[in-house]
Order: sequence, then C-alpha cells, then structure tokens
Amino acid sequence: MRNLSLLVDYYELTMANSYFVNQRNELATFDLFFRNNPDRGGYAIMAGLQQVIQYINELSFSDEDIAYLRSKDTFDEGFLNYLRNFEFTSTIYAIEEGTPIFPHEPVLRVTGPIIECQIIETMLLLTINHQSLIATKTSRIVHAAQGRSIMEFGSRRAQGYDAANFGARAAYIAGAVGTANTLVDRLYKIPAIGTMAHSYVQSFETEYEAFLTYAKTYPKNTLLLVDTYSTLNSGVPNAIKVAKDYLEPHGYRLKGIRIDSGDLAYLSKQARQMLDDAGLFDCQITASSSLDEYIIQDLIRQGAKIDSFGVGERLITSKSDSVFGGVYKLSALQENGEWIPKMKISDNIEKTTIPGNKMLYRLFDQSNKAIADVITLEEEIIDENQPYLLFDPNFPWKQKLVENFKAVKLLKPIFVKGKQVYHSPELKAIRNYCAEQLATLWDEVKRFENPHLYYVDYSQALWDLKQTLLTAFADEN
Amino acid sequence: MRNLSLLVDYYELTMANSYFVNQRNELATFDLFFRNNPDRGGYAIMAGLQQVIQYINELSFSDEDIAYLRSKDTFDEGFLNYLRNFEFTSTIYAIEEGTPIFPHEPVLRVTGPIIECQIIETMLLLTINHQSLIATKTSRIVHAAQGRSIMEFGSRRAQGYDAANFGARAAYIAGAVGTANTLVDRLYKIPAIGTMAHSYVQSFETEYEAFLTYAKTYPKNTLLLVDTYSTLNSGVPNAIKVAKDYLEPHGYRLKGIRIDSGDLAYLSKQARQMLDDAGLFDCQITASSSLDEYIIQDLIRQGAKIDSFGVGERLITSKSDSVFGGVYKLSALQENGEWIPKMKISDNIEKTTIPGNKMLYRLFDQSNKAIADVITLEEEIIDENQPYLLFDPNFPWKQKLVENFKAVKLLKPIFVKGKQVYHSPELKAIRNYCAEQLATLWDEVKRFENPHLYYVDYSQALWDLKQTLLTAFADEN
Repeated sequence: MRNLSLLVDYYELTMANSYFVNQRNELATFDLFFRNNPDRGGYAIMAGLQQVIQYINELSFSDEDIAYLRSKDTFDEGFLNYLRNFEFTSTIYAIEEGTPIFPHEPVLRVTGPIIECQIIETMLLLTINHQSLIATKTSRIVHAAQGRSIMEFGSRRAQGYDAANFGARAAYIAGAVGTANTLVDRLYKIPAIGTMAHSYVQSFETEYEAFLTYAKTYPKNTLLLVDTYSTLNSGVPNAIKVAKDYLEPHGYRLKGIRIDSGDLAYLSKQARQMLDDAGLFDCQITASSSLDEYIIQDLIRQGAKIDSFGVGERLITSKSDSVFGGVYKLSALQENGEWIPKMKISDNIEKTTIPGNKMLYRLFDQSNKAIADVITLEEEIIDENQPYLLFDPNFPWKQKLVENFKAVKLLKPIFVKGKQVYHSPELKAIRNYCAEQLATLWDEVKRFENPHLYYVDYSQALWDLKQTLLTAFADEN
Repeated sequence: MRNLSLLVDYYELTMANSYFVNQRNELATFDLFFRNNPDRGGYAIMAGLQQVIQYINELSFSDEDIAYLRSKDTFDEGFLNYLRNFEFTSTIYAIEEGTPIFPHEPVLRVTGPIIECQIIETMLLLTINHQSLIATKTSRIVHAAQGRSIMEFGSRRAQGYDAANFGARAAYIAGAVGTANTLVDRLYKIPAIGTMAHSYVQSFETEYEAFLTYAKTYPKNTLLLVDTYSTLNSGVPNAIKVAKDYLEPHGYRLKGIRIDSGDLAYLSKQARQMLDDAGLFDCQITASSSLDEYIIQDLIRQGAKIDSFGVGERLITSKSDSVFGGVYKLSALQENGEWIPKMKISDNIEKTTIPGNKMLYRLFDQSNKAIADVITLEEEIIDENQPYLLFDPNFPWKQKLVENFKAVKLLKPIFVKGKQVYHSPELKAIRNYCAEQLATLWDEVKRFENPHLYYVDYSQALWDLKQTLLTAFADEN
C-alpha cells in the first residue's frame, strides 16, 4: 500500500491550517465538474471512482508525514494533531463509473467539514480527471472501430506507471478488449494480449525461421508480425508458408497476422487477398501504428480489411487532448446551521458556477434513449408521473414538455458521514454497464465533428436560486 | 515498495518464453533512442534514470506473479522457474539525468542475455519516456521565462499519481523552482509552494476579511489570490489595505499577489502600478492560468509585470505534445561468441536503425559550447589531441574539421554484469548539472521556431559498417 495522503496541493494544507487556527470547520459542499468534453466531443465517460474510494479508505497521515509538515514551520501543532488523528466524516455522492457525463453537471459532490473537503481535493481531481480522460478517449476509438476490437497497447508511452495501469483500466471500462500490460491482467483481470516484436524476427537468420519457431512454440495462438522486412513480399508469404508447412499438418490454423507500419489500408487489403487465396479465411488481420479514432474511421471508410486495432500512445496519453479539465468548486457553506448557497461569479460567463446543494437526474424516453440531464436542488424529486418542463438555462424560453419518461438519479451515495455505503462492481460489470449506457445516447451525440449538444438543464427552483444570487451580486457592484 | 515487475508488455514474455524453450539466451544489445524532439524543438532532456535503477534493483517475480503466469497456460515450467529465480546480469550504459539529448543517439544501452533485454523493455521505455517528456517541456517553459521563476502546479491534471510525483521530479530537474505537490517535497525535497484557492476567499463574508485572516495566520508569508471577484476593483485594493492595516503595523511586508484569470498582461501591469503607488515595490506578482512556453514568451514580450509563473496542466501532461517517442531496438547479437551487428531497415529511411555496439561522445569547444555529438563503435576512442573530422551521416560530403576540443563520453556505466556501479546524485545536483549543460547549447538550438539542428554524427567506422549492411541488404533484395 502506497501512502498517497500527502499527494495534496500545498495550498490545501495552508488553507486548512488557517481554517483550523481560526476555529472554522463548518460544513461545506464542493462540486466536482468539468466544462468541456475532450476533443470537442459530445460526451465524456466517468471513471476512477473505485480509486477514489480506496484513497479515502487509506487516507491517514503517518508520524513521518507529520514530522515533515512540522519541519515547514508553518502549521499549528493543533492542526498537526488533527491530521495525525484524521478521520473522514464527509458524505460523497458520485456518478457511477462507466456513465456518460456532460459538462457543468456535478459528477461528484462532497459535503463535510470544510477542512476535509479541501484536503481531498487534489486526489479527487487527479483520479477522476485521469481515468475519465482515458475512458473518454477509448470510448471514441471504440466507437470509430464499429464493432472491431480495440486493444490498449500504450504502456511504454504512458505518463508514468499509474498511467499505464489505471489507463488500461479506464480503457477496458470504455470498451477496449484487452491490454499489452501484463500487470493489469494480474491485478484487474483485463486480458493481456501480445505475441512478438520486430526484434524477435530480427534475432533469427530468416523471417521464415522466426515464424516457424514461434508457431512451434505457440501452435494454438500463432499471430505473426509481418512487416519487419517487407509485408507483402516476405511477411505475408512466410506467414502463409508456416501455416501450410507446419500449422495445418499439425491440425492448427494460423490465428492472425499483425501489420505495424506502412499504408495500412493498402497493405491490409492485399494481405487479406493473399490469405484468402491460400484458404486462410479465418486468419485475422491486426493493425497498429500511431492509430486513433480519426485514422481508424478513415481506414474503415477506405475499406481496409482490419479485424482488430492495437492503439498505443494516442490512447494512453489522449494525445489530441491530454487534459480532462475537472474542477472542484465550493457550492454551499453552512452558517449557524443553515446552508448558504455559494457561487463564483466570473467575468467569463462560462466559469460562473452553479450554487447550492444539488442532485442530478437523467431522463430517458420510452425507447430508453437519454433525453436530457436535469440538475435540481438536493431535496427536489422529479415525478415520473407528471409532465416535466425542460428549458435551456441560458435561453429559458427554449422549452420542451416531456411525458412518459423515466427519471434516474445519477448521483449515488458513496460515503455517508464517513461510512462507505457503495462498493464498486466487478470491472467487467462496469464495462458492460458503460456499453449499455452509451447505447442510450443518440449517435448524433457520439459523432466527432460538431456533435449534437446533449442538454444539461436546471430545475426551475435551481434556476431561480441562481438568478437571485446573480441579481444580488449585480446590485452590490 | 510496489511490485512493478509484471508491468511488462505481454509480448515480451511470449518472446522470452519462446527463446527459453528454444534454448536461446545469447547476448544481445538493445539501444534506447528517440526520433524527434517534442514540440519540434531543438533538444530534449534526459530524465528517469534513478527510477530505472530502482526498478532493476527491485525486479523480482513473486510466487503470485508466477501462479498468475502459469494460469495463462502459455508458458513453459522451465521458463517460469527461470523467472522465479530471476537475477539481473546485464550491463547498462546511460546518459546521466539532466543532460540535453538529441534524436537518434543511444541514450541508454542494454547488453545482456536476450531474455533479460526483452523483459525490461517496457519499464525502461515507460520511465525514460515519461520523465524526459516532462523535463523537456519544463526546460522550454523555464527558457521562455528568462530567469523568472516557474512553479509546477499540475498535480490535479496529471495522468495518474506517478505522473504527478515523477512529473514534479522531472520538472525540478529541468529548472522549476518548486511544486504544488506536498508529497514530493517530503520524498524528494522539491520545495512545495502554495497559499490559497478561490474557495478560501469565498468562504468568508468579504474578500478583505479573507485576506486579513490569511495575513494573521501567515504574516511572514502572505501571498493573496486577488481575482476571486475583480482583480483591479477589489482584489489588489484589498491586498494593499491588508498590507497597510495589518502587515506593516506588525513589521511585515506583503509578500505577493497571485492573478489566476483574465488578461494577465494588462492586469499585471495595472496591479504593479497600484502596488508601487502604495510603496509595495517588493510585493511579487505571480500568475497562473493555462500557461505554457508560448504564452509566457508572449506575456514577457508584452511587458507583463510578472515575477513568477505557476504552470499546471500544459506542463504536467506536456499538452502540446504528450508523447516522448523513445524506442528500444536490437542493435547487435552474439553468435558463437562473436558480435553480429543488427539493423532494422525500413521503407521509411527515418526508421532505419544504427547497427552495432556503440559509444557516444559530445565534443565541446574552448568556450565550453557543444559542437556536436558523435556516435562511434564501442571500442573507438576520440583523441582530443588530434583534429577530428565531423561529417553529416546523411550527406557525408558536408564536413568540418574540429581542433582543440574536449570529448566527453556521454554513456556512463550504470550496471556492469548485473552489479550497480552508478549512484544517482542528489536531485539538486542533477538540477544544477542540467542548467550547466543547457548553457553549453547555443541559444539557436533552444529557440522554439525552427531551431538550429544540433549535429549527431557518426564516426567513420560506424558509417562504414552501416553502409556495408545497407549494401548487403540491397544485394539480397
């Protein structure tokens, strides 16, 4: 077990210490939300909650941590004592992993003493931002592949060990079928996949000898890398020869070939023809080489004959947009036992926050398609038996009355007053749930160019509250 | 201690097992190198070696690891037994951390039994790729700041916990003065920095009360975040008021203000004027808000009055280019006790590798400026007392005779036949060394647009070897 308790921005500790010495530790609510979908897409995928839960459960400051903090000559002894005896007492609501999520809605909410809220900020953001980034990117790549397999091959280019491990986890949630990273097979049962590199082929006198040796070692699972010398002039012919000379006489079939360079559209079509001509109809073609959702979409459009894609650096770092911009903002504070909604009002309208303790609903129509999300005040209940008036919070005259809908509360209790009440499903169940939930979104939301804007609306009560605070602010200024 | 021994691409294990069952474990040499500088820059910075050493020292497969591998029904029992009793016996040469490095030159070299070489590939690449990426990005940002401080503020947007921790380490090596991440202050003595977030200011009735409370808690180190409401209309005036009302009467000075949004050029100039008018000449201005080397360069060009920059997501993920493309390629193989140079010949000339067991020299002129790097065969010695003929390996008629130079071997022995012979300096010493080495590069190499191409040349003997292999390949095909 690694002690990550001090993986906290230093300012959280200076703020917390200041609250402590000023005898302030009232209840507060912070919302974790994001403002833009990665890659200008139409949605994102929530991931990382299981690691948030693990972090909270392990949160504890050791004697060494305290001695280090004391050495900074900045923190009050009472505060250090508070940290040494730290107990988590807050309530956390969160959207389950694998759920499509949208800008501005709270995806996680912490209500607790303000010092606790601050201390956990960095790890909450870091965990959710990273895994949601990779899950979202993978979901796009899986969508582009239209049912063909996506394998996560990025460990060597990941931004550190956790990025390789939790990145593979997030990729699996979002639909990758496996990973190159052996450790996560052991840890999370994500199938590890892989056969050979160019160095293997080069280490033999001839490509044929390399293929034959590999086939003899793994006759049931012979997948040959065919581009070390020349894909069409030597790689594919040698692979076919090994199938005919060794595998078929011994009762096995050539399982597949992998092309890792060159024009994948052209090479895959030619290779498919050569394999088919040799009767190897069941031999799969795998491709890899700086792939992402755009290149895969383009390969399919060109009629490339590729059955599965190995995707590396552009998935594991989300290269085209490497940051998931989750933020964590104060939305309410208790004063004398009463909740006071808080809002950050920015010159940039986009950055104005949504005040108050809130709940989040997703409305589904009769065919189980998602209609819209609605942010409400915490105590509000959306009655499925009554028509519900949706309206755009920015243009409230744009309205839509919905009937015969199903309303699902998306924020689930995870910790209640410090007690864990939610346990993450098995990873495979999260993966299945993610696929189911993605199916509730219209394809127009999932396309890459100018996706349809999914509605995240406010309840009337929440909208009224925000307007009241905006008006009061305008009057003061 | 985390067991990362199974953080290995599955194909390394299938290859290794195939070598094992075919009784092949001859000596091989693999080179770790990269093909392009991130962000189309003129150089990169080597980082991560200390973590490579730690990984090698901890490399060991537990009973649980072996049981997991056995469950895959793929690996020979003899191979599993070999792994269970794994002992590292290879020799590793590497360039020291903090050294500027250039495309195509070997930055790390492993010579050992081919099975060992394969098993460590993923972790070597992952470690060096990640830290070199962040060190390179930070070096560019530090260069843009022209002596102003750069603080690493990216933990919350990092790609996982290791990315936050080792990213902060790499940033410090490359010249960042500190980090927001408290854990790396404790672990690596990288100064942790930070004061307050907007939520702190919002949690008080008024901004003035928030600032006053903070000043009372930290009178020696009062740095106030001034953009929660309005930087110029309330933030800076309230900061000045706290300096006058509280700090100065108690013998303290206002240490600084931080601006986190808005037009940083305009706001910093106005704020500087207001602070100076109030006699707060020594009050520092810190800025943050989606900064990178380009924005910092532009702010300085506009005359922004900013003393230090907090840089977050664009540093910690190297957002504009999130992948360091290090690769690991077979360059020689022993057959019957004799080294056979190996070269991967690609249709893409850029991807053709450099054969043989090699050494790397950097030549410096009398004023200690780097002239060029020279890749030689291992046994070659560059004699500083003789003129040396440099030539471009792609255009060998482009020549330059150098005299009165200093030749430094860049590849240092790290492990010799499994025994560690190199110990990493203290992090601060690596940081100083990095600054010194960067000073040996001409500014033309360090500029962002069309940087001068630093020469990485071959010795005549290496060039001849490569030509011989290319000719032989052409004759065969």
